[in-house]
Amino acid sequence: MKNDKILLSHGSGGKLTHELIEEVFLPYFHNPLLEPLDDGAVFRAGEERWVMTTDSYVVDPIFFPGGDIGTLAVSGTVNDLSVMGAIPRYLSVGMILEEGFPVADLQQILESMRRTADKANVQIITGDTKVVPRGAMDKIFINTAGVGELNPAFSSERKIYPGDQIIINGTIGDHGTTIMAHREGLELHSDIRSDCAPLNELIASVADFGHSIRIMRDPTRGGVATTLNEIVKGSQAGILLWEDKLPVRSEVQGLCEILGLDPLYLANEGKVLLVVEKEVAPRVLAQLRKHPLGADAAIIGEVTDAHPGKVVLTTEFGSKRILDMLTGEQLPRIC
Amino acid sequence: MKNDKILLSHGSGGKLTHELIEEVFLPYFHNPLLEPLDDGAVFRAGEERWVMTTDSYVVDPIFFPGGDIGTLAVSGTVNDLSVMGAIPRYLSVGMILEEGFPVADLQQILESMRRTADKANVQIITGDTKVVPRGAMDKIFINTAGVGELNPAFSSERKIYPGDQIIINGTIGDHGTTIMAHREGLELHSDIRSDCAPLNELIASVADFGHSIRIMRDPTRGGVATTLNEIVKGSQAGILLWEDKLPVRSEVQGLCEILGLDPLYLANEGKVLLVVEKEVAPRVLAQLRKHPLGADAAIIGEVTDAHPGKVVLTTEFGSKRILDMLTGEQLPRIC
Repeated sequence: MKNDKILLSHGSGGKLTHELIEEVFLPYFHNPLLEPLDDGAVFRAGEERWVMTTDSYVVDPIFFPGGDIGTLAVSGTVNDLSVMGAIPRYLSVGMILEEGFPVADLQQILESMRRTADKANVQIITGDTKVVPRGAMDKIFINTAGVGELNPAFSSERKIYPGDQIIINGTIGDHGTTIMAHREGLELHSDIRSDCAPLNELIASVADFGHSIRIMRDPTRGGVATTLNEIVKGSQAGILLWEDKLPVRSEVQGLCEILGLDPLYLANEGKVLLVVEKEVAPRVLAQLRKHPLGADAAIIGEVTDAHPGKVVLTTEFGSKRILDMLTGEQLPRIC
Repeated sequence: MKNDKILLSHGSGGKLTHELIEEVFLPYFHNPLLEPLDDGAVFRAGEERWVMTTDSYVVDPIFFPGGDIGTLAVSGTVNDLSVMGAIPRYLSVGMILEEGFPVADLQQILESMRRTADKANVQIITGDTKVVPRGAMDKIFINTAGVGELNPAFSSERKIYPGDQIIINGTIGDHGTTIMAHREGLELHSDIRSDCAPLNELIASVADFGHSIRIMRDPTRGGVATTLNEIVKGSQAGILLWEDKLPVRSEVQGLCEILGLDPLYLANEGKVLLVVEKEVAPRVLAQLRKHPLGADAAIIGEVTDAHPGKVVLTTEFGSKRILDMLTGEQLPRIC
């Protein structure tokens, strides 16, 4: 690795995160279950196949329009299990609190976790709490790990083919823009809200088409552009995105222009990208739209053999540009 | 809860930790799997019963004689699964790093994690890394969650009866004293080392006696005194400890006297307390002593109906005193 110190970009979800994982972590932790480097890992429990995943949440601010660090901590891990084709069942919660943290704030976060867990029909079954002296950290960090059994309705092949359609269940960039607006003091001028929500019910609703769904991924850190790059990395296929099909709220688009951000690289916390066999895509789209979290679902692109391993955007004016993984610094503490 | 802000003592593992869990956390997260409030929770995976557990590690210093935060993060979670009677199988790792953290230090920690995982025969199958800006936290925090299937050889009744013997696999207070000595700059004057180690192999070695082992617990934060209090809490039985049977290294005893600490309240990271049916206890003891991590194993007390719900210490001079749960501030960031 080029750097001898950890940079913020190592946590961005983009290029440097991949470099950190591949060059620093993997040499120590190589095993067949870890190696696919998915959002979770599949293990055998008796006759069944289960999935395990983990995520730490360090978002700043901890309360934001549309949710808080508790909503995020439950939704994020539920979603990582769901996009792996698992039925989320049980979560663990590891909290690290700063001395002096207000108990009332903690209760509000716990209430969000409870509400989100109920909505997702998962149980928080074990936990741990550490307290560190004032100044040794900022307020509260939450880790959730989760397990759930694989739903055999979903394909586990995880390969894509030219012609496959790219579907997203709604607007992009809402979470990232919300956090950014809040930090810039712009939140009062808009009704932008984080999209953070558990997606397991939405995803279960398309299980009937599971064998035609090649891959599902949640475009969190690094955004849609980075996640699609992860899908095509090392593949014989590439992805073509149609800019005019991308669902973006006008308020998000406006704020992004003010702040110089690109919604394609902003974190989402209630979105899933589905790569779906072409013939079945319209039916998957129709099914997604029946669910409140899929009302704005859209087909936004397709898999192509024209540019293997690359994601290319066709702009509204017909020109094309390559969308690389996120490079450089993204805004830190986004989730 | 009396306090409206989180205190360091809420993370001590003692009385205030219990108050925080019972009065703040439980009202939100009550379900039958969580309620036993053990070191982990049992869930059904197909025909099998599995255990899930989680712990965050915030130890300061991150490197110490006998190990580092990586050794601790793997050992601690392996041990929580093991004392639940599970065979540890898979771990997740959630890292939070401070911007500027040296990559060489991270590599040393990863190497410790790899070595400890190999020793414990567990696989790290999934992970997550977050980076927060310089100053937003201190160096590195690690969360590990773990799963493993219940070993049916061990009793799941978890009840104690008068006459049961209390066994520990070796000396107490080593980890806590090591961390404390290091902070006080006394580490060069002694050869005290943390006991941190994975205990699953040791515990598996007594599986033949599993149905005579009532409860196993690892006396980490809060030490032996607090863990034994947790065992007798709300029970019809109490525990009598014999001070002259407690294995304590002379260096640990000496440092504790200098620093005004009681080894009974100091954290251990490679120790297990076993409550064992009286007739079988000598054989369990003999078996434990065959393993390097059990060489100093000792019977240190017994279950009695003389003082229900209380832990009492018979001192070397024959007097008795009640050992309560840890109260007040323990040294923070011990694990």
